[in-house]
Amino acid sequence: MIWNTNLRWRLPVACLLLEVALIALFGVFVRYDMDADPHWVQEKVIKNLSTDLENEFYYRYPSFQDVHVMIFVGFGFLMTFLQRYGYSSVGFNFLLAAFGIQWALLMQGWLQSFDGRYILVDLENLINADFCVGSVCVAFGAVLGKVSPVQLLIMTLFQVTLFSINEYILLNLLEVKDSGGSMTIHAFGAYFGLTVAWILYRPNLHLSKERQSSTYHSDLFAMIGTLFLWMYWPSFNSAISNHGDAQHRAAINTYCSLAACVLTSVALSSALHRKGKLDMVHIQNATLAGGVGLGTVAELMVLPFGSLIIGFVCGIVSTLGFVYLTPFLESRLHIQDTCGVHNLHGIPGIIGGIAGAVTASIANIDLYGEEGLAYAFGIERSKLNWSPNMQGRFQAAGLFVSLAMALVGGVIVGVILRLPFWGQAPDENCFEDAVYWEIPKEPKSTALRSEDSSIKPPEP
Amino acid sequence: MIWNTNLRWRLPVACLLLEVALIALFGVFVRYDMDADPHWVQEKVIKNLSTDLENEFYYRYPSFQDVHVMIFVGFGFLMTFLQRYGYSSVGFNFLLAAFGIQWALLMQGWLQSFDGRYILVDLENLINADFCVGSVCVAFGAVLGKVSPVQLLIMTLFQVTLFSINEYILLNLLEVKDSGGSMTIHAFGAYFGLTVAWILYRPNLHLSKERQSSTYHSDLFAMIGTLFLWMYWPSFNSAISNHGDAQHRAAINTYCSLAACVLTSVALSSALHRKGKLDMVHIQNATLAGGVGLGTVAELMVLPFGSLIIGFVCGIVSTLGFVYLTPFLESRLHIQDTCGVHNLHGIPGIIGGIAGAVTASIANIDLYGEEGLAYAFGIERSKLNWSPNMQGRFQAAGLFVSLAMALVGGVIVGVILRLPFWGQAPDENCFEDAVYWEIPKEPKSTALRSEDSSIKPPEP
Amino acid sequence: MIWNTNLRWRLPVACLLLEVALIALFGVFVRYDMDADPHWVQEKVIKNLSTDLENEFYYRYPSFQDVHVMIFVGFGFLMTFLQRYGYSSVGFNFLLAAFGIQWALLMQGWLQSFDGRYILVDLENLINADFCVGSVCVAFGAVLGKVSPVQLLIMTLFQVTLFSINEYILLNLLEVKDSGGSMTIHAFGAYFGLTVAWILYRPNLHLSKERQSSTYHSDLFAMIGTLFLWMYWPSFNSAISNHGDAQHRAAINTYCSLAACVLTSVALSSALHRKGKLDMVHIQNATLAGGVGLGTVAELMVLPFGSLIIGFVCGIVSTLGFVYLTPFLESRLHIQDTCGVHNLHGIPGIIGGIAGAVTASIANIDLYGEEGLAYAFGIERSKLNWSPNMQGRFQAAGLFVSLAMALVGGVIVGVILRLPFWGQAPDENCFEDAVYWEIPKEPKSTALRSEDSSIKPPEP
Repeated sequence: MIWNTNLRWRLPVACLLLEVALIALFGVFVRYDMDADPHWVQEKVIKNLSTDLENEFYYRYPSFQDVHVMIFVGFGFLMTFLQRYGYSSVGFNFLLAAFGIQWALLMQGWLQSFDGRYILVDLENLINADFCVGSVCVAFGAVLGKVSPVQLLIMTLFQVTLFSINEYILLNLLEVKDSGGSMTIHAFGAYFGLTVAWILYRPNLHLSKERQSSTYHSDLFAMIGTLFLWMYWPSFNSAISNHGDAQHRAAINTYCSLAACVLTSVALSSALHRKGKLDMVHIQNATLAGGVGLGTVAELMVLPFGSLIIGFVCGIVSTLGFVYLTPFLESRLHIQDTCGVHNLHGIPGIIGGIAGAVTASIANIDLYGEEGLAYAFGIERSKLNWSPNMQGRFQAAGLFVSLAMALVGGVIVGVILRLPFWGQAPDENCFEDAVYWEIPKEPKSTALRSEDSSIKPPEP
Repeated sequence: MIWNTNLRWRLPVACLLLEVALIALFGVFVRYDMDADPHWVQEKVIKNLSTDLENEFYYRYPSFQDVHVMIFVGFGFLMTFLQRYGYSSVGFNFLLAAFGIQWALLMQGWLQSFDGRYILVDLENLINADFCVGSVCVAFGAVLGKVSPVQLLIMTLFQVTLFSINEYILLNLLEVKDSGGSMTIHAFGAYFGLTVAWILYRPNLHLSKERQSSTYHSDLFAMIGTLFLWMYWPSFNSAISNHGDAQHRAAINTYCSLAACVLTSVALSSALHRKGKLDMVHIQNATLAGGVGLGTVAELMVLPFGSLIIGFVCGIVSTLGFVYLTPFLESRLHIQDTCGVHNLHGIPGIIGGIAGAVTASIANIDLYGEEGLAYAFGIERSKLNWSPNMQGRFQAAGLFVSLAMALVGGVIVGVILRLPFWGQAPDENCFEDAVYWEIPKEPKSTALRSEDSSIKPPEP
Repeated sequence: MIWNTNLRWRLPVACLLLEVALIALFGVFVRYDMDADPHWVQEKVIKNLSTDLENEFYYRYPSFQDVHVMIFVGFGFLMTFLQRYGYSSVGFNFLLAAFGIQWALLMQGWLQSFDGRYILVDLENLINADFCVGSVCVAFGAVLGKVSPVQLLIMTLFQVTLFSINEYILLNLLEVKDSGGSMTIHAFGAYFGLTVAWILYRPNLHLSKERQSSTYHSDLFAMIGTLFLWMYWPSFNSAISNHGDAQHRAAINTYCSLAACVLTSVALSSALHRKGKLDMVHIQNATLAGGVGLGTVAELMVLPFGSLIIGFVCGIVSTLGFVYLTPFLESRLHIQDTCGVHNLHGIPGIIGGIAGAVTASIANIDLYGEEGLAYAFGIERSKLNWSPNMQGRFQAAGLFVSLAMALVGGVIVGVILRLPFWGQAPDENCFEDAVYWEIPKEPKSTALRSEDSSIKPPEP
């Protein structure tokens, strides 16, 4: 096989063609929803709204910005742990997310915000587009270091499409609750990415083994990603919840779950090391599993101690996964999972989906109040014969649909990405920025001397 | 003394036991407050609230997230300035804060949000838990590099307990104003930590002197912490202020104070260097003293120029402290204050407490308006014989109580932490990540060459 | 010429004198606006406001904090790309911004918030002060590495003054729309800075050429700045827009423009490299041009696809500028533009101004609705003979005024900064932190060994 990693024509053409197509489609289809349109001034009078604050903007803007930080800084920097792949981690994540949010506005728009003629966008669409791209960032973690930016654009194109369809099935047909996306974002993204990684299996990846580890400073950069994901996860899980108590509860639950998850991740990391030392990989990743695991139930009545339990379990399972499962997946199943997304998003996503099914099936009027139950599950819009038990079964169905879509979609996309002309690098050059980036020469002397002889002494 | 830093059983057992206890206590005691409960839907009708926006969530969520960033990224990265202690700074701060917020929800809950049967939590509890942990992060700065994570968990357990009691005395018994916590958070945290450091005095710490300095990049990581603390401090000081003008005023005052503080910190840093050069330690720390000093008065009528004066003074005092006081404390009083928390939190916290007493004692109807005065000091809830003078004296009393609690508590906790089996390192191994962390090997060649010979040239 | 870079007296005196003057002026002039004053409690009753949420604080606080992050972390870290100038980039940006916001509160206050006796400040003033300082940060980018902190303070003093006058002319006399400041902030700041750089031309700058490049990690630090600017730009462009739909629309438009800009920046960066490799300089800077270009039209009816087109064009033009224009400016016009602000803020700012003139001149009732049009352009406050065409011409006039003010002001300030006693460094010592900062010695061995021989093995 001839490896040609020179993207001089392929990458520019891909970017420009995609963007021109997006502009054309936006021109034909995308308009502002009422509360972002100047006609809102009249609408306020018609709807008898007392204040501009009733504009959706003020309910969701802070959460939106937090989610935005998670996608670009959170995921971007989390993946900078590799010693020579920092530019690509941050830069390709930036590229795929910037493309993905535009395509998601269209795909999700057609399926969910289409008024027959136009897609009407407001802040909720932007949040949902960020969410959709979040699942692509998850999948990127599985193939990190082994694909070209052109492959990433293609993967994003397909994954956003499949994500939107899967989301439509879950939210609109099965009417499941999944406000933080345990199923639609995390489980779907992880298993999609793992399937792609499986198809793209590289038998000689050990040739770039040396670059698969971190350095001292690359691990600190990665902690920037970890912490912004961890801190803003309450916003992630509450961003599109119902106004009022649901948003409030989702934030509290996620806060609790993540706190518990840190303690069990630390515990297991130390217990599984022969000298009791902590492993940065676990601290960077497993501590976040509590946010993933709470994605489905965040706005439901799990109670704070229920959230703690979920975080407790996810921290343990995720750390165990990093120690035992990732090597197993690579050696036995030929799945090379660079960032261990199976441990951070895969299993915790499934746990979240199961927790959602269980929590929904035990919902009752005592716990929620009569109006509260109707409001929480949107029953007035739904079938009359609604029951908690049925909701629970639909939740479980949603999990299976997500996994099935991820596996089938991952196979198809993986096969497309295996075509040899996307500019991928040979196995021995994986995890290396210099393949796709102009890299600065290191300064001759790395020492920054306080009394540099090249500096003229100042006059006294 | 036999030093055993292998935490393989001690750290996991401590984490898991604590977390299991927390889950049990949360299960028995913690429920959602009304505005995070599904019954809120009915409550809105009963209370005749016009909109979901009246949910406390929308008043405080942006401030909460900013405070959250300050605790985890702000304090965490501020301490990464040490050349070989970045993992521990960020990682142990992460661990103790994640444990501390859970324990604080319980302790503060029992004392302040207990309805006789349950602790009812909403967003304000989360903010207060973060605040409480902030004082532990301050104390951590004093002992940074010299304690094991097990010691930190124990210190957090006790300090959160003492903090909650002290806070209860100040806010509920003495009814002082301290919305940004000059007294409860900063002065208490600093003197508690310094007392612990005094008890844990290490006579041979000079053996790890070499690792007590920074490197070029570790200083830049620390600036991430500094800036997020600096930028979000207006949120910190306004997060639990009264709705409306008080929150608004607290943000403006803090913004002003911090801006002034930067100028005087820079001025003093340059003036105190024989060649007029700036010292990163001062820029990283003293610039923040203006936020600490404004913690008590932030929501009071100090006026913008009063805030500037406080910031002006704090910047000067704090920088002087780093240059003259820290060496004095170490050589004469045997207090080894790794991060100089005495200069950043100790003295400015006392200045803040005094400023609060003065500002309260000159409060009057001209300045606040009649309703404004009652609202600002919550007089309707308090004794009828309220007077500004009395309030001022209670404020001063609050400062003394905080200092007394810190000193007494610090001695007790210090003695407990001196027990030899918590996994602490010998003096010559302080400030070293490798004691508790798996550290990556540095790559053989640090040079990242643009034209790496190991990269196959792409086909033309 | 004798170069004396010892600032021991000059910098402290400058900082302290300026701060004392600011405190005096704040004491005489600055008070709280009504919604940050305790009399607000009564005001609510008088104005019949239903809720504390009507306090301006709740409309704008999240946007304010995002803008604050952009100024201090965004601009500060964006400039850390230089290998030996990270302390100065972050530190001097911190210093000039902290001084600038105070001076801007006064200058903008006298011109726009003066009630005859006092400047009444609220959150909007803080945002505007941050905006004003943003233009100084832009200018700083042009002279980065070549000026002393004393020069920066002087530049800030004058630039804030000129900015405020220019802003007054545009917003109050010409009544142009420029909520995100394409003209007032970006074009003004860039051409002011470039003119200063032109006057301060250093013929022997090639002597410090070696330090003008980046290192691997300095580029990652710079990406922190890039991403926080990119992510929070929707807040920047919407922060002072009208309540409701205008803020909402400005956020959506900016989000779209920035996303498109990333794709065209990547495309051009790859296409212009002989091996198709990406250049970090473009990814760090050109990706942001879409935010600059949308500054004037953000709240107008450009529609999402119009925003995409602006972002598309700005990404291309900006990347071309970095490749072709910056070398041309240096070699032919003797303008040494360290950060390439001409490409990121100059040309995109002009594009934004032109887009504003075009968009305003095609405004009509179909697009905005009758009340919407009046509200969007504030027509009720303005002359009766308002027409879109006239608005368009005033917008164009505003752009010319901004450019003229920048060039004339830049010449004057440049001449002042050329005086030889401000502590500037000789050409061969530019881009070097050690001139003004105490720099840590690099540790003897940079290797952090996992099994450090200096660490006593733990007892079994």
